Amino acid sequence: MKITLNAPLDMHLHLRDGDMLKLAAPLSTDFAGAVIMPNLVPPVTTPSAMQGYASRIAAAMDGAAFSPYMTLFFTPMGEKELISARETPGFFGFKLYPAGITTNSEGGISDMAQADSTLKLMEEMGIPLLVHGESHGFVMDREQEFLAVYRHLATRYPRLKLSMEHITTAAALQLLDEFPNICATVTLQHLIITLDDVAGGALRPHLFCKPIAKRPEDRDALLQAALSGHPRLMFGSDSAPHPRCRKEACGCAAGVFTAPIALPKLAEIFAANGALENLQAFVSDNACRWYNLTPVQKTVTLHDEPMTVPACYRSYGEQVVPMYAGETIGWSITD
Amino acid sequence: MKITLNAPLDMHLHLRDGDMLKLAAPLSTDFAGAVIMPNLVPPVTTPSAMQGYASRIAAAMDGAAFSPYMTLFFTPMGEKELISARETPGFFGFKLYPAGITTNSEGGISDMAQADSTLKLMEEMGIPLLVHGESHGFVMDREQEFLAVYRHLATRYPRLKLSMEHITTAAALQLLDEFPNICATVTLQHLIITLDDVAGGALRPHLFCKPIAKRPEDRDALLQAALSGHPRLMFGSDSAPHPRCRKEACGCAAGVFTAPIALPKLAEIFAANGALENLQAFVSDNACRWYNLTPVQKTVTLHDEPMTVPACYRSYGEQVVPMYAGETIGWSITD
Repeated sequence: MKITLNAPLDMHLHLRDGDMLKLAAPLSTDFAGAVIMPNLVPPVTTPSAMQGYASRIAAAMDGAAFSPYMTLFFTPMGEKELISARETPGFFGFKLYPAGITTNSEGGISDMAQADSTLKLMEEMGIPLLVHGESHGFVMDREQEFLAVYRHLATRYPRLKLSMEHITTAAALQLLDEFPNICATVTLQHLIITLDDVAGGALRPHLFCKPIAKRPEDRDALLQAALSGHPRLMFGSDSAPHPRCRKEACGCAAGVFTAPIALPKLAEIFAANGALENLQAFVSDNACRWYNLTPVQKTVTLHDEPMTVPACYRSYGEQVVPMYAGETIGWSITD
Repeated sequence: MKITLNAPLDMHLHLRDGDMLKLAAPLSTDFAGAVIMPNLVPPVTTPSAMQGYASRIAAAMDGAAFSPYMTLFFTPMGEKELISARETPGFFGFKLYPAGITTNSEGGISDMAQADSTLKLMEEMGIPLLVHGESHGFVMDREQEFLAVYRHLATRYPRLKLSMEHITTAAALQLLDEFPNICATVTLQHLIITLDDVAGGALRPHLFCKPIAKRPEDRDALLQAALSGHPRLMFGSDSAPHPRCRKEACGCAAGVFTAPIALPKLAEIFAANGALENLQAFVSDNACRWYNLTPVQKTVTLHDEPMTVPACYRSYGEQVVPMYAGETIGWSITD
């Protein structure tokens, strides 16, 4: 079996900076583009910082055709600043983090009322808002508790292009169906794993991420929605490289590194479920339609030839362990 | 403030074997005795293996007055074997593990019907049954799913001395109230932590145990029951030393090491909640009454002088990291 994907997009990607960027960027070049997260240290909050970051990404891509859809870390701002952001080449939208909710999000928003005037302007100007939707509650409830905020945003700013990032629950899918003005991304791992895989047997730090993997019924609902080609559900890997030493130590950082294996593994899953014809929508068409994107020309062909996933990616002095490290997955990219 | 405890007992303790036993045993000598778990490799299934283990424990205690209440790993057996077990000095009861549910439990029971004739005999002979009550389901549901088995056991063997070991849910407490012929143990950590502490921020392997810590409402219910002096709820630390290298690596083993800090921390918690007068029941009297025990003479006096917990216990080439490693707790044992 085989499939050729046209301009696959990763709608939620962490590329980091410095040596880690140099390691990670070339491992995403099977994609035609990706929405790049701004949670560096310090976060990317200004157009000039964003442009600098985009240049470093371009350099790290080493000539590969790839569209980095750049985001700014959401902070309240006025019309002039928003216009300046929108006019910056490569700008895609804002990423909003509740304060302190995940890696490098300390400067995030603690009260949505702070954001009101900015969100009104963004709605008028057609600037997308991407949200890490978790409360500060009990870890298994955080996404569900945040749904009230999504409901508020979708109601108060009906024309705002609002995305629920990396959803992990059946409840978030229900909200997606309820509000046609919301879209959502979902990761590879949340189509596959549950909390059982993270902490049900031994503790597995390389599968620990935020939001944490939830219950089997959540995973199953997300998988069915993806397989069905839900028109407002998009693939966003949330691939998050952390140095191996930070993942395999006490106080392990949150994030699963999936960029280099995402497309083959997605093809395997969609094929195994007889839904290969919906993969194009999930990894590209839904996003292009929703955001009116025209990514660079690129096709990727995958086939059902197994590949062995490297135990570790090493370069520039960094080491990152991917999902399925050292294991075999059923599909691969053709040469 | 001060309290003197009479013959404190740890009703669920892992002492391991070899060098780890030599490290761990002296760290439990503030207790007058403990129920010793049999999940060595291979498990302790015969009276002679149990006697050998009891001798090694006595040697490791180095003369301290301490009653090891020895358990055998439950396997189906006939009357002669049960009589032989009961007549073995130090024998306390059987520990039943569902097959494969925790550390070294591969030889456990996969179908409770296998156990029927043995349990009938144990009921007649007054031999206690201690159960690790988890199903093989989703990690957050395992204890609740197992309650049907407890219900079955309590109904079918009404005079069996049945203990739900290391309970972690409000649902298990409800069952305890429903069946006066069941008792339960609860650990220190399950009175304090929830899944948030294990995986809500960074991943914290030293707080990872089985059953995994549950929801805040479960922790709160367990704490209230302990503080209230519930007559059939007993302290069992489930203190489980693992070599530091096995806790701080990928695939970290389950278990929290609390033996050396359990009594001071319990005193701190009971005092902070104005329930110090119920600590004696929780750490000794309830168990003595239920099991008709007469432990060795020992008193321990605790006071509200802070102590700093060692970052790591090292001896005999082993290293074990305790709960609250390197932190200060509010109470300590008087010299």
